[in-house]
Amino acid sequence: MATEHIVTSYEDELKYIVRRISEMGGQAERMVEQAVAALMRSDWAMAQSVVADDLLLDAAQREIDERAIKTIARRQPMAIDLREIVGAIRISNDLERIGDLAKNIAKRVIAVHEHSQPMQLVRGIEHLSDLALEQLKEVLDAYATRDHRRALAVREGDDGIDAMYTSIFRELLTYMMEDPRNITACTHLLFSAKNIERIGDHATNIAETIYYIKTGQQMESERPKDDRTSSLAQTDMTMPSAPGGTGA
Amino acid sequence: MATEHIVTSYEDELKYIVRRISEMGGQAERMVEQAVAALMRSDWAMAQSVVADDLLLDAAQREIDERAIKTIARRQPMAIDLREIVGAIRISNDLERIGDLAKNIAKRVIAVHEHSQPMQLVRGIEHLSDLALEQLKEVLDAYATRDHRRALAVREGDDGIDAMYTSIFRELLTYMMEDPRNITACTHLLFSAKNIERIGDHATNIAETIYYIKTGQQMESERPKDDRTSSLAQTDMTMPSAPGGTGA
Repeated sequence: MATEHIVTSYEDELKYIVRRISEMGGQAERMVEQAVAALMRSDWAMAQSVVADDLLLDAAQREIDERAIKTIARRQPMAIDLREIVGAIRISNDLERIGDLAKNIAKRVIAVHEHSQPMQLVRGIEHLSDLALEQLKEVLDAYATRDHRRALAVREGDDGIDAMYTSIFRELLTYMMEDPRNITACTHLLFSAKNIERIGDHATNIAETIYYIKTGQQMESERPKDDRTSSLAQTDMTMPSAPGGTGA
Repeated sequence: MATEHIVTSYEDELKYIVRRISEMGGQAERMVEQAVAALMRSDWAMAQSVVADDLLLDAAQREIDERAIKTIARRQPMAIDLREIVGAIRISNDLERIGDLAKNIAKRVIAVHEHSQPMQLVRGIEHLSDLALEQLKEVLDAYATRDHRRALAVREGDDGIDAMYTSIFRELLTYMMEDPRNITACTHLLFSAKNIERIGDHATNIAETIYYIKTGQQMESERPKDDRTSSLAQTDMTMPSAPGGTGA
């Protein structure tokens, strides 16, 4: 009976941690949504609330960390139970960094604020963040259901984000070349797009952790998470006559 | 005697992990040095070797992770021993990410390659990486000696990196505005400078982990690790008549 009591108690601790991670996930999603919305609408108040929310996410991560470590020390879990706890530490770390990236985007709102942005760029960045948020939602569902096949699919989906980021990167450079007055705003948009692309990478990390929790194996051939813009030289760039012109 | 055997064995395991972290630290330092040197000298072969080295660093992190988890499961360490192991997992994670950032810099070599860079920018970025490398060396020494006061000093030192990054950011924007042909190369240098600034942040994270290992406490008021360029609006920018001109 003593054993049963300990087992139940361990499960309660684990359940609590898993629930807190779901909450963190929901909060991280909301922060990303709001940060991108604030950037697009130059909504300074919303940007400030994202910056404030990041403190809550940091605190949540620290709490989960401490809880997890205490659970390991107290319950000495083995095998899958241990992986659950280690996985929780890793996932809360990724969620905290997604919050950081959302905060970084929010902080650029003031810099981009004064400049009108071409509608096409706005849509591009919104679309990029939609893709990243989809990945994030999907991987949080995969975590809730411990579905490592679904997690694998999330990892595959990161390609789409990388491809779209590359195209936005090119487009932003084009705007900068066309008119030097676009340079400051476009630079901040470049960093924002990069931050969104990194949010996709963290969704991929979470997918890999889910795989590890379920199987006890690290994923073998890690797919390259880097963006491909790093090898775009100036000679690759085309300079259309009109911004985003269709060649007309 | 059985107890003594277990204790010794646990210490051996810990020593092994700590030694592997020192090795990872040395490798991460070398990668940062070489990545920046490759960027400055357009040394494509050196850049490729940095990209290759990153795989070794990833493998080392995975090995330390697995070892640490096995040690927790097998030895069930408590208090400071547990913090040592948890700290090792965190530090190897930061070192792996420093390696990623070095790799990201190395991958930009091909893009920056064809463009001659103003000497002043080159020196600025070299100086920024010198500062970051100094912080990294210092924090690895603090880890080797478990000197949490020295770790605290590293955290304070991150301000210097942030200030220099801000000044390089402004300078790069100025070059871009002066001549659109600088835009592509300068964009890659912007991301490289940002990567170096992030390396400083990871040195700060490691400092915070050392503090946690020694004291069992998370550092209370986390100092803001973000760069300050995110709030630089175009109106803040001055546009000197000559690149980096002294006002003459």
